Amino acid sequence: MTWLARVYVTLKPVVNDPQGLTIRQALADLGFGSVRQVRSGKYFEIQLEAPDRDAAEAQVDAFCRRLLANPVIEDYRFEVEQLSPARA
Amino acid sequence: MTWLARVYVTLKPVVNDPQGLTIRQALADLGFGSVRQVRSGKYFEIQLEAPDRDAAEAQVDAFCRRLLANPVIEDYRFEVEQLSPARA
Repeated sequence: MTWLARVYVTLKPVVNDPQGLTIRQALADLGFGSVRQVRSGKYFEIQLEAPDRDAAEAQVDAFCRRLLANPVIEDYRFEVEQLSPARA
Repeated sequence: MTWLARVYVTLKPVVNDPQGLTIRQALADLGFGSVRQVRSGKYFEIQLEAPDRDAAEAQVDAFCRRLLANPVIEDYRFEVEQLSPARA
């Protein structure tokens, strides 16, 4: 069974985000003064094989812990969705 | 009124994604052979001021077109959510 996981990795709120600050400034320079805050992060779409939803979620959690996120400075969350049989 | 926009920027499906390929290989090297495909992207959380939802969405669309996404090789989508008055 094929699953699609959408993974969001964000910096923890206490961690400085120079990329986000730069984007906020760039938006201000473009005339968008309404922007209060920008936080940057990473996004991954992962297709994987797993027998059921629990197994798929356990695998994606392991991907995040072992590779995709740095637990010292980053948080992660994800959603898992079953791909239709036609795409599997 | 304060709004939170969640912006997802992804490479168009026809565009090569060397970062995604590298992550897939790294996951395989870690023993996760169940991974079929990884696509990498960017994720932003933006807080902005706007009088209503339509105005907020129009602004975020402009942010994406003018700064956050490269329309030649990337797609974007976003969601806008009103922050509670306590946080506004």
